[in-house]
Amino acid sequence: LNIETIKWAGDLGGCAELIDQTLLPGEFKILQVRDVKTMWEAIKKLQVRGAPAIGIAAGFGLILGLQEIADDAPLEGAREKLKEVGAYLSSSRPTAVNLFWALERLQKTAQNCKATNTRELKEKLLAEAQVIRDEDAAMCRAIGEHGAPLIGENAGVLTHCNAGGLATADYGTALAVMFRAHEQGRKFSVYADETRPLLQGARLTTWELMQAGIDTTLICDNMAGHLMSQGKINLIITGADRIAANGDTANKIGTYSLAVLAKAHDIPFYIAAPSSTFDLSIPDGSHIPIEQRNPEEVTSFGNKPTAPENVKVYNPAFDVTPHHLITAIITEHGVISPPNLNTIRRMLL
Amino acid sequence: LNIETIKWAGDLGGCAELIDQTLLPGEFKILQVRDVKTMWEAIKKLQVRGAPAIGIAAGFGLILGLQEIADDAPLEGAREKLKEVGAYLSSSRPTAVNLFWALERLQKTAQNCKATNTRELKEKLLAEAQVIRDEDAAMCRAIGEHGAPLIGENAGVLTHCNAGGLATADYGTALAVMFRAHEQGRKFSVYADETRPLLQGARLTTWELMQAGIDTTLICDNMAGHLMSQGKINLIITGADRIAANGDTANKIGTYSLAVLAKAHDIPFYIAAPSSTFDLSIPDGSHIPIEQRNPEEVTSFGNKPTAPENVKVYNPAFDVTPHHLITAIITEHGVISPPNLNTIRRMLL
Repeated sequence: LNIETIKWAGDLGGCAELIDQTLLPGEFKILQVRDVKTMWEAIKKLQVRGAPAIGIAAGFGLILGLQEIADDAPLEGAREKLKEVGAYLSSSRPTAVNLFWALERLQKTAQNCKATNTRELKEKLLAEAQVIRDEDAAMCRAIGEHGAPLIGENAGVLTHCNAGGLATADYGTALAVMFRAHEQGRKFSVYADETRPLLQGARLTTWELMQAGIDTTLICDNMAGHLMSQGKINLIITGADRIAANGDTANKIGTYSLAVLAKAHDIPFYIAAPSSTFDLSIPDGSHIPIEQRNPEEVTSFGNKPTAPENVKVYNPAFDVTPHHLITAIITEHGVISPPNLNTIRRMLL
Repeated sequence: LNIETIKWAGDLGGCAELIDQTLLPGEFKILQVRDVKTMWEAIKKLQVRGAPAIGIAAGFGLILGLQEIADDAPLEGAREKLKEVGAYLSSSRPTAVNLFWALERLQKTAQNCKATNTRELKEKLLAEAQVIRDEDAAMCRAIGEHGAPLIGENAGVLTHCNAGGLATADYGTALAVMFRAHEQGRKFSVYADETRPLLQGARLTTWELMQAGIDTTLICDNMAGHLMSQGKINLIITGADRIAANGDTANKIGTYSLAVLAKAHDIPFYIAAPSSTFDLSIPDGSHIPIEQRNPEEVTSFGNKPTAPENVKVYNPAFDVTPHHLITAIITEHGVISPPNLNTIRRMLL
């Protein structure tokens, strides 16, 4: 499997290249993103999505924003621009904390680096944005390594949305666990929720798993409980968009229902996420802002309406799963089980 | 609200007329069904759907099959034809018992009626098929009457799939309860699951509820648990396709998950169904055959693929909710609570 979800092409004057995920699996197209507004829209429209990947995208977005300032312009102006562009990119999507984490990390780099001119500042920031991307790839491998033992021979694994290579720089979070178990030679089956309304599971997760040669079955979200009642699911692994200090986890809408169903069927429920997805500044999930998206995602397909005109729609992009429903959180540092204030602090701090 | 989901047009040589539900809400088209093969396909393709409605459709289908026999043909041949057409229609969809119930009822009419020639036999059968339709309309009203008190002022009601006028001769089962509570002047909100893969909730339920002037919000199936956790849902009402002697209930895929979620959130979960949906010949839900449908319902929309070619798909049309998760079953005879072997027999026998 070799997916370059997002990367920087060229030098300081270059551009970000990303796979346009709204076109998959029908069309594989690399989008060249040459300005910050286009990056903002790529994040908003989910051309790039997945918490770790949008962190990387935001980092590259900052560089694109800075390109509007000449290399020989005064350093103070560049620093001002940096703040302005950071605030702008922050407004693209509210829930995944990796986006804010990456932007803050680059702001700190700008504050702490000893750049003496604007060109130098840009160089340091691009280097750091690249580091974020490279770290993400390494983190995916580590998550895969830590999580793989959880998938036993002949297991039935359920996943929701896409927490694969397309959601990260490489290899994924939840899917990393499956890729690694597969590399280790274990046979198992994955059931992928299609994940309404935008079908990331149907379009992206099945595509990645099939490319890796993993036995994959697509289901509608509402079939998961039925499968559990039939004993077909031995464990559930999903990604995460933000994890509070106590382990409460925001992830794609529908994750909470799966966790409740898992509990009712005595099935372990795992979250796979890097440390950058933790937000230790908030005590619990009630403080995580939940993005509300456009009703048309639910009421039409392509341009064809699938519901009456003017019907009211409730379309939250995420829900919050309380930590007591989560068996463990698989991070690049190890498996946190059970996740709570103490076990999380012990692993991450 | 005035929907004529299905009716017979003309005399013995007439045809069945039904609303093509695959085209709603975009297009309102009456389909004239003039032969039994077309009726079989209309049932299979869900142009007519909903357990009570396909019972009625099967009844009219028998008449269409008999039209192939001349009015002055020998009576024995007509009786043979009747059996053959009944077996053929039985093969259209396996789960909803109303289909078999209607066909058996008409076979019994044929056995017991004192028809002396083929024309007379046809007349008796058409009259009985009409009675089934008229009884269904009366049954809807009775279910609405019995169930309406369960919806309190300002309640949030969740429903799944379509158990409305379009699933019956008139007025519906689960939706009948809402229509009646609305007529009685109560204010409440309904959340309608879109119901993947065929979107009966998005296309049909919202359409019916909005026409009746009931406050309606469309959600994706995977959002229901999140709504429950926020306290927005006070009760759940769905229809049913087959109810075993102990109250175990087959209904549209996803119903079981809702029942588990309802239990976890202490929300009452109701089934609304006529006595013709009960199958007292089977002790429990494990004996209900579950229809598996075409993978393309999940992997494409219109003709546009939404998943990789050749992906494996699991696409059961129904699941079974065990009776212990059902607070009550609302029938035309009254409310069965809690549903079990004894309470069901007491109400129905």
